[in-house]
Amino acid sequence: MKDKQNILIIGAGLCGSLLALRLGQRGYNVNVYEMRPDLRTVEISAGRSINLALSDRGFKAMKLVGIEDKVRELCIPMNGRMLHDVEGNMVMAPYSGRDHEYINSISRGLLNALLMDEAEKHENVKFHFNKKCKSVDFEKTTALFEDHNSKDEFVEDADIIIATDGAGSVMRQSYFLGKKFLFSFSQDWLSHGYKELSFHPTENGDYKTYKNALHIWGRDSFMLIALPNLDGSFTVTLFLSYEDGEYNFGNLTTPEKVIEFFQKYFKDALELMPNLVDDFFTNPTSPLGTVKCSPWHYKGNTLLMGDAAHAVVPFYGQGMNASFEDVTIFDKVLDEDHDDWETVFKVYEQNRKQDTDAIADLSMDNFHEMKGHVNKAIFREKRNLEMALEKNFPNDYSSKYSLVTFQENIGYREAMLRGRAQDKAILNMLADKIIDLNDDLKTNLEKVKTVTEEILEDDMVAKNLKH
Amino acid sequence: MKDKQNILIIGAGLCGSLLALRLGQRGYNVNVYEMRPDLRTVEISAGRSINLALSDRGFKAMKLVGIEDKVRELCIPMNGRMLHDVEGNMVMAPYSGRDHEYINSISRGLLNALLMDEAEKHENVKFHFNKKCKSVDFEKTTALFEDHNSKDEFVEDADIIIATDGAGSVMRQSYFLGKKFLFSFSQDWLSHGYKELSFHPTENGDYKTYKNALHIWGRDSFMLIALPNLDGSFTVTLFLSYEDGEYNFGNLTTPEKVIEFFQKYFKDALELMPNLVDDFFTNPTSPLGTVKCSPWHYKGNTLLMGDAAHAVVPFYGQGMNASFEDVTIFDKVLDEDHDDWETVFKVYEQNRKQDTDAIADLSMDNFHEMKGHVNKAIFREKRNLEMALEKNFPNDYSSKYSLVTFQENIGYREAMLRGRAQDKAILNMLADKIIDLNDDLKTNLEKVKTVTEEILEDDMVAKNLKH
Repeated sequence: MKDKQNILIIGAGLCGSLLALRLGQRGYNVNVYEMRPDLRTVEISAGRSINLALSDRGFKAMKLVGIEDKVRELCIPMNGRMLHDVEGNMVMAPYSGRDHEYINSISRGLLNALLMDEAEKHENVKFHFNKKCKSVDFEKTTALFEDHNSKDEFVEDADIIIATDGAGSVMRQSYFLGKKFLFSFSQDWLSHGYKELSFHPTENGDYKTYKNALHIWGRDSFMLIALPNLDGSFTVTLFLSYEDGEYNFGNLTTPEKVIEFFQKYFKDALELMPNLVDDFFTNPTSPLGTVKCSPWHYKGNTLLMGDAAHAVVPFYGQGMNASFEDVTIFDKVLDEDHDDWETVFKVYEQNRKQDTDAIADLSMDNFHEMKGHVNKAIFREKRNLEMALEKNFPNDYSSKYSLVTFQENIGYREAMLRGRAQDKAILNMLADKIIDLNDDLKTNLEKVKTVTEEILEDDMVAKNLKH
Repeated sequence: MKDKQNILIIGAGLCGSLLALRLGQRGYNVNVYEMRPDLRTVEISAGRSINLALSDRGFKAMKLVGIEDKVRELCIPMNGRMLHDVEGNMVMAPYSGRDHEYINSISRGLLNALLMDEAEKHENVKFHFNKKCKSVDFEKTTALFEDHNSKDEFVEDADIIIATDGAGSVMRQSYFLGKKFLFSFSQDWLSHGYKELSFHPTENGDYKTYKNALHIWGRDSFMLIALPNLDGSFTVTLFLSYEDGEYNFGNLTTPEKVIEFFQKYFKDALELMPNLVDDFFTNPTSPLGTVKCSPWHYKGNTLLMGDAAHAVVPFYGQGMNASFEDVTIFDKVLDEDHDDWETVFKVYEQNRKQDTDAIADLSMDNFHEMKGHVNKAIFREKRNLEMALEKNFPNDYSSKYSLVTFQENIGYREAMLRGRAQDKAILNMLADKIIDLNDDLKTNLEKVKTVTEEILEDDMVAKNLKH
């Protein structure tokens, strides 16, 4: 691999910028081509996931590149879900029973700018803005770009090309349309779309509602959420069906109807946003989709990474974390000193694919959990039990949420299998009154562990993984 | 809908021809455009699924159009799987404990010809051959065709267009590339491909091996199967990885290596095919894939049906049956007298989609079952128990295979959920020695039923379908 040092990265988003930084640190010659202007010099457009949730898998990658402290400065801890009911009552549901486990609200723009700044400190890393990729020739390892200003087209050559150009990846499209190899691919759209709104800060710059939480107004078939920003504002997101139900994006076409809808379902939120109607009719409604594909690479020439390889719906707050984890895993494979890039790409995909498939499925699970389950008695009982277990037996129990979010040293797939089995065990024991929440906690821990193991074992036998 | 009577069907394969026949019977003006020549006048190319398994869901559609008896004449009953081990020993594993339940080997060409003959008896049905569809304008409800001989292009207009143009559907591609609406789509390729081979008849026209079975040589990571034809031959199919394992399609490049492979793993089959090397190097190697998508329709203008909407891998022998069942279900929706085609298409997809998703998943299950599970002791014990239950309690028990294959009045999804739960119940009770095959059969039936219900109930609680 020594003779293949020129790496072209398509896309200077979060994943591409981190990858450029890491490969720069490793000494490669890195050129990053980005279709948009430099976000450090121009205002990025509003209305598209302004802030994100950063958690332990993401931080592991930040540590790898040595910028953990700088990133922490951009973070607002969110210790739990603040659940808002229709009456406007609030209750805090912590994310974990262990105090040091929480997620963080962070600005996409600030984090991306930091990653680019750090990458550019390396002489061997260069960013090229306003260069839109049109297609990739994966046999020749070349990419065709168009300059946004001059509209001139030009071809760039490299030893390897890594596409981190997001859910709508142009290189992935070249794989799909090229039909040169068997390319498995799926795009799955939700019937729900999303729209970003906002709570402005108070007149003296304070937060209008509790700062250190992810606020949720779950209404079964739709929901509103809010994440805090450093400037005292919250970015608020409405998830709603395009067509179904009494209120949907298709029929919320007048200010009156929008206000009626919020008055009925999000009364307390409406009070915090006199700017609702403006936001609603200014910001776009965007679709929510999951993308999976395989293979991610073509020979040793090209590789998909981040959302380009595995876009997920946002409900586990893991999209960015998963993309950052891609870089961690890729870096580990580079450490293994394989003979050629094809082996690196193959081993990387083998190590990684089942975990990104799992986080896609987990993210769909959480859509249903956030919309409705969080409001159901049996789910609340489960969460209460899990919080108590995590608090009292911090080394012996982790909920599915904790396994996914705070245990960066196990893969998403393991977290999913164990987490789902635990959920099934607890929910069924609660339904069948085999667990009593007034019982001794140690007894309940043992019951949960035993039944979880039985469920995992039964599934293995049924799937013929054993015998 | 009375004013929209002109229906254009793209593709005169099994599904399109049946649909044309049924819509002809209902009085619509039907024009069917097929890219290939009329298969009744030219030899169809060898090497691509010459025969198929027809079972009860398919027959239900044949009854609907009144040609059951004619179809029966083309059928060769297959009562079970004839399992061949590496030594060449054979053991028959029946498909059902009920004697009247079996599947049928049928020639794709003969059945397709019959369907076209029957359809053409209706003056209002016309077939147009050698007309290749290039694209569909689903806003205007027009299709662009190219004449195979003259290469002239022409546009056809219709009130509605139904595409039954198979797994590589051109209309589905127009949906995908058009990006006019949120189109969920997946194509999943197996790492295995297939190649068709054959056992010729004996010199006096007899079958070289047992006629009334689907023969299987399951070898865990690959397999060979054989289905009988009316002329005394068998169509034999090899399913093998493209790249992995000691022997694969990638390295079977010389006659010597092919014979070595068959000598080692399919000794008794090799003895029946002196023509092996010829077949192997003449016939193509083809990929195996699953296609899912949604929505199937655009407004009331266009609709995907059959493999165009839901292509499956062939391992449950349900591809053709599922496509025929599409027509049965569609016909039932037409009986409901809806106001417009958009409602017909919407209701049809709502009724049908979850079942075609299920048969896709079931077909993947059966890939693993046929390759390897059938050879495992615990799976054989399960099948023996199930055969005994079906034989002795014909009204009280049906295996997953029977639910899918012989119970045409329940949907695939219901068959899948119940069938998988039964399999899990039996396998785990066998593994845990809770069921003893020497016990009273009635006792074992009760155990299976009770534990199956528990599994279904536990899954419902975990998925929050209840409480």
